[in-house]
Amino acid sequence: MSREQKFWGWGEPGAGPALPDQAAGMLREWLGVSGAVVSTPVALADVRLRPPAVSPALRAALAAAVGAEHARDDREIRVLRAAGKSYLDLVALRAGAAEDAPDLVVAPADHLEVQAVLAACTEAGAAVIPFGGGTSVVGGVAPERRRFDVAVCLDLRRIDAVLAVDEGARVARVQAGRRLPELDHALARHGLRLAHVPQSYEWATVGGCAATRSAGQASTGFGRFDELVAAVRCATPAGELATLGAPASAAGPDLCELVLGSEGTLGVITELALRVRPVAAEQRYEAWLLPSFGDGCDALRKLAQAEIAPDVVRLSDEDETRMTFGFAGDGGLRRRAGGLALRHRPRCLLVAGWEGEAADIARRRPPAARLLRSAGALPLGRGPGEAWRATRFAAPHLRDALLDRGVLVETLETATRWSGVATLHASVRAALAAALAATPPVLGCHVSHLYPDGASLYFTVFARQDAEDPAGQWRAAKRAAGDAIAAAGATITHHHAIGRDHARWLEAEHGRFGVELLRAVKRHCDPAGIMNPGKLLPD
Amino acid sequence: MSREQKFWGWGEPGAGPALPDQAAGMLREWLGVSGAVVSTPVALADVRLRPPAVSPALRAALAAAVGAEHARDDREIRVLRAAGKSYLDLVALRAGAAEDAPDLVVAPADHLEVQAVLAACTEAGAAVIPFGGGTSVVGGVAPERRRFDVAVCLDLRRIDAVLAVDEGARVARVQAGRRLPELDHALARHGLRLAHVPQSYEWATVGGCAATRSAGQASTGFGRFDELVAAVRCATPAGELATLGAPASAAGPDLCELVLGSEGTLGVITELALRVRPVAAEQRYEAWLLPSFGDGCDALRKLAQAEIAPDVVRLSDEDETRMTFGFAGDGGLRRRAGGLALRHRPRCLLVAGWEGEAADIARRRPPAARLLRSAGALPLGRGPGEAWRATRFAAPHLRDALLDRGVLVETLETATRWSGVATLHASVRAALAAALAATPPVLGCHVSHLYPDGASLYFTVFARQDAEDPAGQWRAAKRAAGDAIAAAGATITHHHAIGRDHARWLEAEHGRFGVELLRAVKRHCDPAGIMNPGKLLPD
Repeated sequence: MSREQKFWGWGEPGAGPALPDQAAGMLREWLGVSGAVVSTPVALADVRLRPPAVSPALRAALAAAVGAEHARDDREIRVLRAAGKSYLDLVALRAGAAEDAPDLVVAPADHLEVQAVLAACTEAGAAVIPFGGGTSVVGGVAPERRRFDVAVCLDLRRIDAVLAVDEGARVARVQAGRRLPELDHALARHGLRLAHVPQSYEWATVGGCAATRSAGQASTGFGRFDELVAAVRCATPAGELATLGAPASAAGPDLCELVLGSEGTLGVITELALRVRPVAAEQRYEAWLLPSFGDGCDALRKLAQAEIAPDVVRLSDEDETRMTFGFAGDGGLRRRAGGLALRHRPRCLLVAGWEGEAADIARRRPPAARLLRSAGALPLGRGPGEAWRATRFAAPHLRDALLDRGVLVETLETATRWSGVATLHASVRAALAAALAATPPVLGCHVSHLYPDGASLYFTVFARQDAEDPAGQWRAAKRAAGDAIAAAGATITHHHAIGRDHARWLEAEHGRFGVELLRAVKRHCDPAGIMNPGKLLPD
Repeated sequence: MSREQKFWGWGEPGAGPALPDQAAGMLREWLGVSGAVVSTPVALADVRLRPPAVSPALRAALAAAVGAEHARDDREIRVLRAAGKSYLDLVALRAGAAEDAPDLVVAPADHLEVQAVLAACTEAGAAVIPFGGGTSVVGGVAPERRRFDVAVCLDLRRIDAVLAVDEGARVARVQAGRRLPELDHALARHGLRLAHVPQSYEWATVGGCAATRSAGQASTGFGRFDELVAAVRCATPAGELATLGAPASAAGPDLCELVLGSEGTLGVITELALRVRPVAAEQRYEAWLLPSFGDGCDALRKLAQAEIAPDVVRLSDEDETRMTFGFAGDGGLRRRAGGLALRHRPRCLLVAGWEGEAADIARRRPPAARLLRSAGALPLGRGPGEAWRATRFAAPHLRDALLDRGVLVETLETATRWSGVATLHASVRAALAAALAATPPVLGCHVSHLYPDGASLYFTVFARQDAEDPAGQWRAAKRAAGDAIAAAGATITHHHAIGRDHARWLEAEHGRFGVELLRAVKRHCDPAGIMNPGKLLPD
């Protein structure tokens, strides 16, 4: 049996760190919340579900396609497949709202069974929502019924084999439902790893990473997930799309790039050929303090353009730096920065990580360190860098504790050219602050991924939750931030994908003709329009 | 007035090097041809053209769209726009066959005029063939009329401005008709360059490079052209497709990747945002001798996977190495390799080039050199490397002299995973040798571009030309080689594109459903099917 997360939060029950001791004081000081637990999630038995609406004929067809034991409509599986892990999702599920949960959850065993599920649902006119790791934070896996009476969750958990490893070419052929840690575990036998490490690493699947164009914490060095995909196999209602997987080709448009980011709206990715790399002999993570966010961005731009950027790069702005030091308490991070009165002299924390052979790091790190020093960076050493690495998956766990305490906590992200980073940073902050003026937020931001031509900005928002309308409170802020991003000509998402929550900005991204073209592609692949309705494409 | 090539060959009249003195002897010994000139191209006045078939109404509409002086149907312009520069193109044009030349050549000034041309041709039911640098070697710019009575060449030579240079982000916004040298010249004022250097560098346009997914000689280091494109603006008959140009995005499928490689079948690329880089302070080109092609490929694989490959890498197989030394005569290359009896002890020539800051080269070159030495490579020093660089654009010029002498000379290229390189090399050689058995060919091959997962192979074919049916002779050989490539699961083209000549293998590349999907995309962008008929998509 596959492992499962809590329906109302992140990770398995009891997993993950607790809030640090100093958190209560910070919440009081910064957000005006008491720090006491004010809300707890409902019990599974109290979650509100509609009766499953699957006709006997469709149920029989799906049971025939995947085996009766893999077509479930019990309360637990329906609630577990009802949503992803965004703030909005968790606010709803903690309150017991799962009325849109799928009617049936089917778990096919392979590509052919996926095709059979799609055929049965096309025939019956049922919506199909593919489900991988379920870590979407943009409403990507929450059933949106639109004109459909029946929603079937197509769960990829059984399609998770490592099919082949070409050690010479460093390419692994993997089924889409494979989770990232389990893939790295299997590849380690070959001395290899995928090394794609988003914050959702513990749960995300390779198919989900492809369908959403994921970026991992080391993507500055190792490439975004879309760059790791050599080939894709996708089952659509109209047929199978399988790309060749040459290392590069001039044979027309790249159809793999149509499947990447398609978020289950064209079909279901069932297999991937992935470019992998050797297990890292050494990892060196360290921290630096930059004089300001602007100075830091300028240094990162030079690192990226000189092709000497660390594999992992995170530059926090002044406010996020203060938050980070606050949360770190009197432990390693604050002690090492001792003497720097952060509150009065703003500084920005940079985490830099190198992974690879020792000789490789010894060759790559010195020019980067020289460039950072010349930009006025102060080295904090390896302690705070390793501390970041040790807690890199902690935030989604801590979020549950913050929700218990009546805190609004959410993230959003974007990317733009270097020349637009400062303006974008300011305008998104201003939009969030204005939209949340009634509950003045604390806003953090970090540069999370570098490119020669630009960078991504990752914002974290904390505020006192509006207990009457927590969803409306966040929707207004999100709307304001998204509009600011679109107005700046930046992308509405660097790595979270479009899902349901970003669809309104798709036209700002692709233009009217581009959106129409995407619709034409969808019509060809999914003539009945059953695939993940309400996602990616605006209504 | 824009510069123009000879209609029957490469470059401006009189430009380029002559055949070296030793060539005649080599041609005799290797191919059994005398080395004497046996054929010369017809004069322009003797080229066979059909009367232009443009209706007065269409002519008036196009003259209104672009200005009467930019809508030409004189003999010279029609012949100059009749074909690209493949062996088949030149064999036909040298013999005066230009019956399929466009009826009219229009040169719009900007995106809006392009839209007007497309509207007029849609209305009149005339085929539109976009024409950039005209360097296609796959029939990409030769009018294929199919069901169309009228073919209009849309010449991009006037749409060639550099619109903006973002020095901080290193992104240049450029109109599509800009030629590569003229772009590098303009960028040099900013200390920048595109540095995309295909063998067609002197003539190719940025729009053509995008439409065909070009790769340049330094693409191992600097990236393929498709990686240099940050955003694209494309005029289609159904509307304008303009992509956003964020450094990276997860906002759905990547529509830029649909335009790249579309070869004018969806619309006309009018503008590009291109990632550029600094002018190289230093360039270091050198040569090595590897014990064998297999050993060399293995060393190149390790270089690519360790991310220490030179920017330019070319590894010739044993036969191409012999040819190269033969053509080089008693000059630098052979002298430096002196003492190595190449004929009896096969060796493979590697050209390696680094470009950048001196400190950057000093950092990057040593680990690569160490790896090459450990693979048994013998250094030949900078002389032969610089000699290669000095003559890197010579081959297409020399081809004209070989055609004069009754030689079949053509190239083809592919790419595959490292694990398939040796088999692919052998099977393409075998296919060519068998198909050309009546005129035993000399076959050379080099690895031209490296990737962590594989490499491209670039084949050059020489044989005695079948004077009775030179086109049929090559078509049979090309067919055999293409079938061998498809059977090996390799891509039918790494950087020459599909055009007319590779369309039969498109289904092997993308699958039946993939080809149908491309047709659906085309129908959406070009409902009347006027855009470059007979190209990319098989009939």
